[in-house]
Amino acid sequence: MKLAEMSKEELSSFKAECEKEYADYKAKGMKLDMSRGKPSTAQLDLAMPMFDVFTNAASMLTVDGIDCRNYGCLTGIHDAKILFGDLLGVKEEELIIGGNSSLAMMYDTVARAMTHGVYESDKPWGKYDKIKFLCPVPGYDRHFAICEHFGIEMIPIPMSKTGPDMDMIEKLVSEDETIKGIWCVPLYSNPDGISYSDETVRRFANLSPKADDFRIFWDNAYCVHHLTDKPDKILNILDECKKTGKEDMVFIFASTSKISFSGAGIAIMAGSVSNMNHITKLMGIQCISYDKINQLRHVKYFKNVDGIMAHMAKHKEIIAPKFDLVLDMLNKDIKELDVLEWNHPNGGYFISVNTLEGCAKRVVELCKEAGVVLTSAGATFPYGKDPADRNIRIAPTFPPLEELEAAMKIFCVSVKLASAEKLLA
Amino acid sequence: MKLAEMSKEELSSFKAECEKEYADYKAKGMKLDMSRGKPSTAQLDLAMPMFDVFTNAASMLTVDGIDCRNYGCLTGIHDAKILFGDLLGVKEEELIIGGNSSLAMMYDTVARAMTHGVYESDKPWGKYDKIKFLCPVPGYDRHFAICEHFGIEMIPIPMSKTGPDMDMIEKLVSEDETIKGIWCVPLYSNPDGISYSDETVRRFANLSPKADDFRIFWDNAYCVHHLTDKPDKILNILDECKKTGKEDMVFIFASTSKISFSGAGIAIMAGSVSNMNHITKLMGIQCISYDKINQLRHVKYFKNVDGIMAHMAKHKEIIAPKFDLVLDMLNKDIKELDVLEWNHPNGGYFISVNTLEGCAKRVVELCKEAGVVLTSAGATFPYGKDPADRNIRIAPTFPPLEELEAAMKIFCVSVKLASAEKLLA
Repeated sequence: MKLAEMSKEELSSFKAECEKEYADYKAKGMKLDMSRGKPSTAQLDLAMPMFDVFTNAASMLTVDGIDCRNYGCLTGIHDAKILFGDLLGVKEEELIIGGNSSLAMMYDTVARAMTHGVYESDKPWGKYDKIKFLCPVPGYDRHFAICEHFGIEMIPIPMSKTGPDMDMIEKLVSEDETIKGIWCVPLYSNPDGISYSDETVRRFANLSPKADDFRIFWDNAYCVHHLTDKPDKILNILDECKKTGKEDMVFIFASTSKISFSGAGIAIMAGSVSNMNHITKLMGIQCISYDKINQLRHVKYFKNVDGIMAHMAKHKEIIAPKFDLVLDMLNKDIKELDVLEWNHPNGGYFISVNTLEGCAKRVVELCKEAGVVLTSAGATFPYGKDPADRNIRIAPTFPPLEELEAAMKIFCVSVKLASAEKLLA
Repeated sequence: MKLAEMSKEELSSFKAECEKEYADYKAKGMKLDMSRGKPSTAQLDLAMPMFDVFTNAASMLTVDGIDCRNYGCLTGIHDAKILFGDLLGVKEEELIIGGNSSLAMMYDTVARAMTHGVYESDKPWGKYDKIKFLCPVPGYDRHFAICEHFGIEMIPIPMSKTGPDMDMIEKLVSEDETIKGIWCVPLYSNPDGISYSDETVRRFANLSPKADDFRIFWDNAYCVHHLTDKPDKILNILDECKKTGKEDMVFIFASTSKISFSGAGIAIMAGSVSNMNHITKLMGIQCISYDKINQLRHVKYFKNVDGIMAHMAKHKEIIAPKFDLVLDMLNKDIKELDVLEWNHPNGGYFISVNTLEGCAKRVVELCKEAGVVLTSAGATFPYGKDPADRNIRIAPTFPPLEELEAAMKIFCVSVKLASAEKLLA
């Protein structure tokens, strides 16, 4: 029965039952963390053979004879450029292989733009009184944190099933020279798990921004992170931009943080040769070279894109059952009440749910009091403010299945309790 | 015989002999690189057992049970803080363990200061019309490049045998609020190999800058890079600053780039708790965590400071003979001509030489034409401009001994030839 259709008496009795169930869980004093999109220990174990790839000093040379143990090779080793170029569908000269964090590459890219501008900027972004970024919502809190850090005003753009609202984006960027960028997670978006349709990608490649130095920050974080045998596919944004002659408009990012190791993966950046050359020149002031040994370790272990795909199939075996469990529990325990909406992602790291209006914070609070830490309500919106207080990001990958089940029981009862409170208020 | 005391005929005949010798070398078509302070292959080989420290997943946990393979631990693992805290003589909470590059930590520190200021700045450094850094000369070209990149005006400060000219520094910083920093390589300075006297360090700790947010960038790059059994010692700048109540005035940097691997070492930053907390907060926007696996790899291999010192003794065995060779050749081949001055460093990576005025560029050019690449003349000065055109940085560590000898023969004849040309002009 739908909660909204219950009589006041039925609702009160429902609430009392929920309170009892909640109190029982709370009494157990559990401590579970579903706050961040972290791989589980079992996933990390998969890549352990990566530490056996070096047998001697000779094994630490690149194909072109560079000793990965010494200085040099700022934009990454040839071997890694071939592997990740194949993965992203870009050429070697369109790539920069970075350190262990694509977040750092994105931050550094914005930081450089603030102090020096991007390729063909008239002036550094920091020299404007105010600049703005478009932020599809819900979105990734760390993208938004970079904007807030640099005082970049964020304009929320609603997401649909095919990507962000392109009408709104086209209109805004064509009118306002101070809009300098947009954050996109085009495949299995964080947190919705939405993949951009071909039309969406083509409309991105066709944007005519008023600002010559507008950039699409294309964070392809989940490029091989599929949960089904029929994975989503997106168009290659750089190829599409080349067709429209706007290949300087996009910066692509990816990493192996959720392929190999979250603390010790490889970050990658791609874009037009002009963009890459411009960035390389500035980046050379910051760094002599990134960790080439770790780059070569990845190449020797994965060998090629097929190797990465085979590895990710093993990840899927571990995490798909966790997503299934969460969706099953929501279906069985909550669906008929009609108080929660959620997505069924084909990949990525999250299940995004929307509560009744004004309930998300309360659900997160109830979970926390019962020992389950979720991502803060509002975190998926700029400035941490979800105007409808509805969105919660569930990150099911880290806990073992049994812990996830225990956590989801608490989550479900918290949703029911918060919804009943809301409807009775 | 001193070259300056030769008659014109003697000098012409000397020059003709040098030209002949130079032409002979040039005809050999050698290709040798002494341009950067890179460890040799033999040095890199020393740390190869570092790749055998992980036996299984359990071996990748920190002492406090953190899985180094996953996200988290922004300021570094406890294990690494103990090791490097002991090495630098600072407490755990006074340390941040970074990625593979101390240059990147220095760059990032300046970059953050430009956009956000340092702890207790009234405003970001970038909000001033102009700010300035003091630059002891000759110095490290990459320090100067950071300043140039951010438009920070550089004021050269002459070096003496005890460190930079402290009278000049004290006067300048006390008078000018826009002087925000100074670059120091306090032990075995780059390129002179000079170590700061106790008085110099104490005078640094006693500085009374007009700018409240003035910072000493204390790049202790060669903290364990001794070439003799009686190594130089410097006072602990953070301790000295605590005595004067000015512990917020210094940022300390170090790395294992020339201890373990130049491309894949560990960078370290240290300073007051207030400074470290301020930086940690801002750094959290840029990065989730640095490579903790590599941090733990270093700790498991070196174990403690004694382990590092024992390892560095093996480095000394390899590189001290190279320094001796260079100094011997200069002594035997050039000294009596009185056209070149040089230092006898007790550690570090360079031998700094001064030619007759106006000859450094010519020497570098002659070497290059004969196949020996040296650091560009002028590189050791702000904006690449050595006003007297005298200083050349010799980096003897990278080539094997026999190649170094061949390169130094070309260097010596180039010095002689350039000096003769100068005196005949």
